[in-house]
This record gives sequence, structure tokens and C-alpha cells, in this order.
Amino acid sequence: MKTNSLIALLTDFGPQDGYVGVMKGVILGLAPDATLVDLTNAVPPHDVLTGAWILDTSWRYFPEGTIFLTVVDPGVGSKRRGVAFQVEERAFVGPDNGLFSYVLAATTPERVVSLDNSAFQLPHPSATFHGRDIFAPAVGHLASGVALGQLGKPVEPSSLVRLPLPRAEWRAGVLAAHALHIDGFGNVILDVEPPLTDLILANSATQALVGWRRVTQHVRTYSEASKNECALLRDSSGHLAIILRGGSAAQMLHLRRGDEVRITGLRSPV
Amino acid sequence: MKTNSLIALLTDFGPQDGYVGVMKGVILGLAPDATLVDLTNAVPPHDVLTGAWILDTSWRYFPEGTIFLTVVDPGVGSKRRGVAFQVEERAFVGPDNGLFSYVLAATTPERVVSLDNSAFQLPHPSATFHGRDIFAPAVGHLASGVALGQLGKPVEPSSLVRLPLPRAEWRAGVLAAHALHIDGFGNVILDVEPPLTDLILANSATQALVGWRRVTQHVRTYSEASKNECALLRDSSGHLAIILRGGSAAQMLHLRRGDEVRITGLRSPV
Amino acid sequence: MKTNSLIALLTDFGPQDGYVGVMKGVILGLAPDATLVDLTNAVPPHDVLTGAWILDTSWRYFPEGTIFLTVVDPGVGSKRRGVAFQVEERAFVGPDNGLFSYVLAATTPERVVSLDNSAFQLPHPSATFHGRDIFAPAVGHLASGVALGQLGKPVEPSSLVRLPLPRAEWRAGVLAAHALHIDGFGNVILDVEPPLTDLILANSATQALVGWRRVTQHVRTYSEASKNECALLRDSSGHLAIILRGGSAAQMLHLRRGDEVRITGLRSPV
Repeated sequence: MKTNSLIALLTDFGPQDGYVGVMKGVILGLAPDATLVDLTNAVPPHDVLTGAWILDTSWRYFPEGTIFLTVVDPGVGSKRRGVAFQVEERAFVGPDNGLFSYVLAATTPERVVSLDNSAFQLPHPSATFHGRDIFAPAVGHLASGVALGQLGKPVEPSSLVRLPLPRAEWRAGVLAAHALHIDGFGNVILDVEPPLTDLILANSATQALVGWRRVTQHVRTYSEASKNECALLRDSSGHLAIILRGGSAAQMLHLRRGDEVRITGLRSPV
Repeated sequence: MKTNSLIALLTDFGPQDGYVGVMKGVILGLAPDATLVDLTNAVPPHDVLTGAWILDTSWRYFPEGTIFLTVVDPGVGSKRRGVAFQVEERAFVGPDNGLFSYVLAATTPERVVSLDNSAFQLPHPSATFHGRDIFAPAVGHLASGVALGQLGKPVEPSSLVRLPLPRAEWRAGVLAAHALHIDGFGNVILDVEPPLTDLILANSATQALVGWRRVTQHVRTYSEASKNECALLRDSSGHLAIILRGGSAAQMLHLRRGDEVRITGLRSPV
Repeated sequence: MKTNSLIALLTDFGPQDGYVGVMKGVILGLAPDATLVDLTNAVPPHDVLTGAWILDTSWRYFPEGTIFLTVVDPGVGSKRRGVAFQVEERAFVGPDNGLFSYVLAATTPERVVSLDNSAFQLPHPSATFHGRDIFAPAVGHLASGVALGQLGKPVEPSSLVRLPLPRAEWRAGVLAAHALHIDGFGNVILDVEPPLTDLILANSATQALVGWRRVTQHVRTYSEASKNECALLRDSSGHLAIILRGGSAAQMLHLRRGDEVRITGLRSPV
């Protein structure tokens, strides 16, 4: 891994407290030349899977050498481990609670360690803020040149927590998909991935059913869509999404994360 | 233009997704030493004019060499152009949809290009996230020393999109102004500019009428104002503003962006 | 003080305007190599005490040499002074309105000056945005090597504004505490400090009373708490806090900042 000091943060700490700032203070005390980037600090509180999903759609756009500091950590202070590992020349540091589920589903992690070496923690870590006391120091030390392997004992990669990931499934000739994420514009991103997304959009007969409402428009861009009518589109992550031109599709369709969206008009591959 | 790597971002992407972070990852992959500053990422979704206004009140406070990456882009993927240009030793990169209207109204842009050189884009740009695939790479390349002219074909400066800008106008001896922007404190900034602002405030007979409500106080600072009563003040951009000490004038007067505010008591210059 | 250019910002400017970005532009024009960190820009508008509290729990985690730029400034443009001073090898810059109350309660400030040297301000400072026109330039000059003493005339340290700080007090054998801060998760942090916090939590008979509701659980971590029932915990700042596992204690108990929380079951030290 190149020595590089780009650090990307993903947390559910929100803007109104000093929690993220304090972590940055700790890091910069150890690695004054590091560059810090907020991936997001507005993951919904305790929502590990949304954090995992945002990380999934983002991490490959950061250069090799990036260290990801990810803290969505409802189990802080419990027996859940803090871990660090390396994937494709990037490092990941955070709680072992499923936050890395998408990364681990797509890659093979290397040099996995648990963050149990107290030499690289703040003295007397609290039971409630490992972001400040354990994860930020680990990242600061990594960025200042400490080898990942020094942060703690090796961990068997297969033992890392992997949460079941939502995925659309065929049911009686209909594709049962789910709202995987609702973004800040109200776009509804479904758990339908690239090759299938393109098959669906290439077939003008496909529709999305949300309760009794139908989404029949297929568009390539937001501006192609009729106003006041939702449309299907290939989102920038390659997933199938429901969008509303100039508005919130989630609001119009009363969709929330996890809700089912049925896709019809496509022959099941089975 | 000096080679300098300060980059200021203005978007409507909000805090809760990884969109801004991903753009920063792309930029820092190309220009690892760049300094990134968020001007704001909370422009109301799709609100090009508010983005343009915030840019207007901000850009001159950034040093020469700054690159402004501005993405409020409801027309992403359509025929609207992506452009870059230079003004007063600073560079601007974003969609050609009016986001630069205030900048262009006050300056003469140089070296305008459309961002059509695919060598400076991510491979296979998406149709829905040019911030990541086209604008961020353009900025990263600029910051790493690529000349602006290499990013694409020259564009006639006069062809850049300029939206009609709200401006107070005289109507039967009354100045019909509008709420141009409502800031985070609830201050209501009007489309009344510096010389006229001072004339209005120098005349103690002037009042603002919002429906049947009158704003008669003139103050120089927030703390001079009586509590529970709105006041007129010269805002930090030189515009006339309606403020409420310790509270939100917009909320008290039920004012929203675009609403009319009549100014009386001043003789029309005509 | 070491010359170091880490600058931490704390304001009530919110995300939706260019105010914070503009301050950063001004600073980076003067000190291009500075590293800027947002401690928070979401202090509730005009809420000096919450700003003071967040600063209190954060500043020691930043390295020596850090400059804190703090702007919660309802009295901007009035006779309240702008000040800068040094404490434990860190510098503080902002309005003298109580924002430094906690810092000053715990330390002895050195080299206090009022920011009246116009050579280190923007030309023609506005009456309404000293963050941009006076505080940011002061910080930029400090970061670029100007000595703190050059920013203005010396000020008697004892004359700095110190607000009365909320503190739990014994009343008829009951500890009358208050909600000092409600964080983004809905945790309610009380004005009960470290040694007393530990005494309370060590005694299983202690309870918190909020109106007619009782909080009887004592936990060390969030995950130890029963779901749907609030609990008492030692927060990461050492203060006593009321938390709800996976939810908002403030919402469940209808607690707002300043509300009283009575702690029973402990013998008064008197």
C-alpha cells in the first residue's frame, strides 16, 4: 500500500455536535499532513446497512492509499470488535458490525486485524465513543506510517461480520425488488443491479408497481421524464431507480427504505 | 492564472449521500495536493438561481487561482453543455444552465470551453452524475496543471446561458422588491443592491410592506433592533434585508423566496 | 506557541448559505497551507452556551497549535469586543460574548487582545458579518505567522465575558440537574460532571426523575440497555447522560435543553 494520507470519513454523527470534528482533531494530531474528506456524516442514526451501501457506491472512486474511517456503531463498547483491513490498496477502519458487508461481498480483504493494541488508542478509552478513542487514533497512526499489522492481532477474514444484503428476487414471474436507498433528491434506488437494470430498461413493456400505482416511463436522464410522473432510470451506481423530474419520487409514491417494488413485464430468467 | 489548487464546491447534493465525497475522491485522485472547501452543498434541490446567488456573494472572497466546482444540474445528461471558463484569475466549472448568471452579469469570461474532451472525463460517463464523471475530473485535471483550453472546444462567451435575474423595480412610486434569498437565520435578503440600499436606509420614512404588515425600523446591526419586531438592515452583501433580532424574519412575515416586498417612502428616481 | 496551521471552526451559520465557505476563502487567501476542520457549523442560531459547551468537550482533542475560530455572534456590530487569546498552546478567536465561558472556567488565558487593528481586517468591515471581515482575517494572519499580540490592544483577561454555567445542585437531598445538551442521537447530557457521575452510577439505587417518569437502568454501553427503556450512562465527556438504545431519549422523555432532571437515591454530600 502506498503511503498516502487521504482519509475519508463515513459516520452517523450528524452535523450538530463536535463528534466528527473531534475525530479529525485526533487524527491531525497524529498525522498533521493528512487530507480529510467527509464521505458523509449523515447516515441515519444506527443504520449500518445504509452506511454500508453508501460506502459500496463510493469507495472505488477514491484513489489507492485512501483510508476509510467508518463509524456507524450502535454496539460501541460491547464485544463487537473494532477492525482494520486492506482491500485493493485501500484501508478500512471501523466496527465489525456489517458496515463492510458490501465491500466484503465484492472483494477479498487482506491483513485483517482487531484494534486491540492499546499503544495505538487514546489513553483510557471511553465505553461510548470509540470513534474518538480507538478508530481515529488507529487511522491517524496508519496515516503517519504505522503498519496496519501493528494495530492489533490478526483476524480470520472469513470471521468478519457480513449482513444479509437485500437483493431483488423472482417470484411467480415478477421481480420483487426493494427500495435500497432514498437519496437526498427523493430518488428511490432499488436492489436491482447493472446487468438486470439494463435488461429491464431495454424492454419497453416493463413497469414498476408500487401498491396500485404503476411507473411505466423509461428514461435515460431526468430531463427526458414527463413532469408529475415517475420514471425508471439507470442510476449512477448502475442500479435501477425510480425518479421524478424536479421532485421526490419517494414522496410521490410514499416509498420508504425497505419497501417492496414489483417489476413486471420481463420474463424470469428461470 | 496562477497554478493554485484551492477548489470550492457548490452543489445541491445535500449531506446524506456520498455524492459530494465521491467528487472529492475523484479530484484528489488527480490532484492529491488540492485543498477542498465546501462553499455549500445545501442549495435547495434543482434551484439554479439560489446556487447562482450564493456563488455571486461568495466568489470574490476566494483568492486568485481558486477553481469553483458548481453542480446544480437538473438537466444532467441532456443537451445542456458542461463548461469551464476563467474570470478574474479564477476558474469556474459546471453545467451551462444559468448557474453562472450573476458572475457573467458582472464580469467578462475568458477562455470559455465546453467539457467535451473525453480524455479528461472518467471512462464511460453516466447520464445522471456528471458531477462525478465530467465536472470533478475536469477540476482535478485543472488543479493538476492541465490548461483550461485543453478540456474541450472553445465556446462563444456570449452563448453562455444567462437567466433573467430578479431585480426590484419602480411601480407607481413604490419600489417592488422580492425576497431573493432566505438565509439559515431567517434573514430575508431583497433584490435591492448597494447604492439603493443606502438611500433607503438613510431615509427614516422608508418602510417595507409585506401584505398588510409594515417594517419601519432601520438598524445598522441585529442587536440595535427591538425584539419581536422586524427591521431593515444593510446585509453583508450590501443588499437590503429584513431581519428579526434573535429570530426568523421570514417566519414572522411568512415570506418565501420570490415573494414581493414593497418599499415605500422613497421618491422614485424617475 | 508552535507555528501550525490547523484551524477548527465552530459557528451557528448552518449548511445552506455560503457564510462558512466565505470565511474559509478569506483564511486560505492569507494562509494557503492551512488545514481547516469544521468542529460544527450547526450550533442552534444565536445559542452561545451550546457553542461554548461543544467547544468545551472538543478543544483538548486538537493538537497544540490549533486555532479555534468560533462565531456565534448575535451581538455582531455592537460594542461587544472581538478577541483572541491563547490557552495551553492553542489560540481562540471570536466574539467576547461568553462563547469561551467553559474554556475560561478551566484555564488561564494568556495574551488576550481585542481585534481592533484594522491592518488585520478586511477593508471596510461590514456591521453584520465579522466572521468574514474581522475574525477570519485574524485567523488567517495568525496562521500565516503574525503574532497574536499584533492583532490589537491587550485586554485584561479577567474582563472576558463569562456566562453563568448550568450546574446540578442539591436541593432537599435531591440533585437537581438539567439537560445541558441534546445530541444528534437524542442523548440527553446532564450538567453532572465526572466525579459525581461515577458516584451516581456506582449506586444502583439512584434514579433520574423526569416529571413522573423514572429512569432506573444503569448501563456502561448503549447495547447493554433494554430496548424501549431509557438508561443512565457515563457519556464520552464524563457527564451523566440519559440514553435510549437505538432511539432518542430526548424524544421519549420530551426533554429539551434546560429542562430539569432530578436525581434521587444518593445521599447529599452536605
